[in-house]
Amino acid sequence: MKIDQRVHNFSAGPSALPTEVMREMQENLLNFQGSGMSVMEMSHRGDHFMTIIEEARTRIRRLYGLDETWEVLFVHGGASLQFAMVPMNFIGQDQCADYIETGIWSTKAIKEARIQGKGVHIAATSEQDGFTQIPETFDFQEDAPFVHITTNNTVRGTQWHNLPDTNGTPLIADMSSDILSRPIDLSRFGVIYAGAQKNMGPSGVAVVLLRKEMLDRIPENLPTLLSYRTYAEKESMFNTPATFPIYAISLVTKWLEETMGGLDMMAAINARKAKSLYDAIDADWFYEGTAHAKDRSLMNVTFRLARQELEPLFVSEALKAGLSGLKGHKSVGGIRASIYNAASEEAVEALIDFMDHFKNRHR
Amino acid sequence: MKIDQRVHNFSAGPSALPTEVMREMQENLLNFQGSGMSVMEMSHRGDHFMTIIEEARTRIRRLYGLDETWEVLFVHGGASLQFAMVPMNFIGQDQCADYIETGIWSTKAIKEARIQGKGVHIAATSEQDGFTQIPETFDFQEDAPFVHITTNNTVRGTQWHNLPDTNGTPLIADMSSDILSRPIDLSRFGVIYAGAQKNMGPSGVAVVLLRKEMLDRIPENLPTLLSYRTYAEKESMFNTPATFPIYAISLVTKWLEETMGGLDMMAAINARKAKSLYDAIDADWFYEGTAHAKDRSLMNVTFRLARQELEPLFVSEALKAGLSGLKGHKSVGGIRASIYNAASEEAVEALIDFMDHFKNRHR
Repeated sequence: MKIDQRVHNFSAGPSALPTEVMREMQENLLNFQGSGMSVMEMSHRGDHFMTIIEEARTRIRRLYGLDETWEVLFVHGGASLQFAMVPMNFIGQDQCADYIETGIWSTKAIKEARIQGKGVHIAATSEQDGFTQIPETFDFQEDAPFVHITTNNTVRGTQWHNLPDTNGTPLIADMSSDILSRPIDLSRFGVIYAGAQKNMGPSGVAVVLLRKEMLDRIPENLPTLLSYRTYAEKESMFNTPATFPIYAISLVTKWLEETMGGLDMMAAINARKAKSLYDAIDADWFYEGTAHAKDRSLMNVTFRLARQELEPLFVSEALKAGLSGLKGHKSVGGIRASIYNAASEEAVEALIDFMDHFKNRHR
Repeated sequence: MKIDQRVHNFSAGPSALPTEVMREMQENLLNFQGSGMSVMEMSHRGDHFMTIIEEARTRIRRLYGLDETWEVLFVHGGASLQFAMVPMNFIGQDQCADYIETGIWSTKAIKEARIQGKGVHIAATSEQDGFTQIPETFDFQEDAPFVHITTNNTVRGTQWHNLPDTNGTPLIADMSSDILSRPIDLSRFGVIYAGAQKNMGPSGVAVVLLRKEMLDRIPENLPTLLSYRTYAEKESMFNTPATFPIYAISLVTKWLEETMGGLDMMAAINARKAKSLYDAIDADWFYEGTAHAKDRSLMNVTFRLARQELEPLFVSEALKAGLSGLKGHKSVGGIRASIYNAASEEAVEALIDFMDHFKNRHR
């Protein structure tokens, strides 16, 4: 591979960013818009960065059609810190929240609530199926402050395609791996959070969409940076935010709006990419999808080779062919192609071509 | 200013990074070492990033001469989250920690301990002097778990030049604005923390140096990402770390070792830069330093114009001359030149030249 050549990157996260975004970042790296400095060297209170963070916020608002009843917050860390902040902010002393367990990320979210001694009720789990599907029946409590779900499960490659009927209880969702990949029915959610490093930018920041009325539930006297209220009141600038990752988010959301044409268009492309790939998997016995077909993820396509002993060869030959990051999560093995927004249709076609060639050589 | 020209950046943070570091980052932005992707697009568990984080850790260890009794951790967020984590981890239920108050950052650290209902004793404060000096007498408790100090105060431009005698109680220090600027007597410290965005890299990550024996004091059942033990046990990789900022830290520490020649050399350069600038301020009545001379910071040089009404003109003309970020902190006004490691001697000379010319035109 030549030094200036980019691979097709199927990494589960951190993951591919649009090449045109990377080029814009590169061009401006030493001197952003004539400022004589990089975005990462400038005061977060200066005009340049204030414009950048406002653009990131506004574009996210516009992409999801968020009105003024919603806050868009940039919080330090990733989803894992959100696992702790959600119960800290939203499970009161005598309350018990509903959690739906659909994979290791939701298990971790549940664990963080329990560490704090908060009330947790498992309303459904697919653990008995090795998390290869999304549950269909739920044991919701009547007075739960929220129902927590993980909208997409990177490890097993499952995704919620229909939201559960919570009878009015707001959903709080970890949307790290499918945020901004499709339109969503916002009316069902109280809070949506997502680490940036799959569909939005570099790691180190989480985007939180929060319905303003949720702010009233937050107790006083939380550590300042662990209260969503701080981020809302200070427009995510109580302290120095993760300026460069937020800059990247502003560029990625610009690309989503201006190049890809918004979430409807992006969703159509994502559906097309996933369908081509699942069709290739389902073509015959050589490849086998691992998630239940009804719940297959459009973001993380997981499969095995019927002859599993060929999988290491598949991964290493793919890498030689310029297809990177295809090894499955260490806890389950197999193959995983993460095809987030920035994975192009060309990349998916290249993968399908490789799969065909590999099959022809090894069947 | 031409589009490819960089200003002399005196911003208090985020702040200047070495131009050669920025160039290396730029060259590799789309394709890091033949990987075909940016550092910000690659798995944190892959060989490339594992090498990067290990290099950042090792270089910090070597620069400070840290032996195996110390941990080097990369924690999400900046110093403000550390203000909360320190008491959470290190003030036990019946304990009371000593804090020395030397400016708004130490005041914020104290506030975060109190929010959690932790015992806090103010062992000294310079509030009565508007934080323009470092206290010299201390009312230490005998059994405090630690003494907290802020080694450098960006707003008022003061810095600890001699550590207080704590009679064996370990110091915990916020070293955000002078980390890696000079050698330190490590034997006095239990924990040192610093947001990256002044002397090390972009915002979004804090570096924590922690004496291993401090780990034994940490209570069980803290939220996972708020316990230093998690970062120690998982080598700062419990979840996705802020990969790109850590990459920048690896390059800045490489520059510190290989270009600047280590902390002794860096400290000598920093002392020279500060002396030139303070000499220019002290030359006559036109400029006036605002911190007590004995406690002047080598990192943030704060001063006023005797004719304060000229200060806005000073800042705007400086900017036209390619000298950026000289406006004092909004809470105190005046002029502040932040001359962290990456502010070159050439930049400081350019500032002194400008100050001379400005004085000649306006005296």
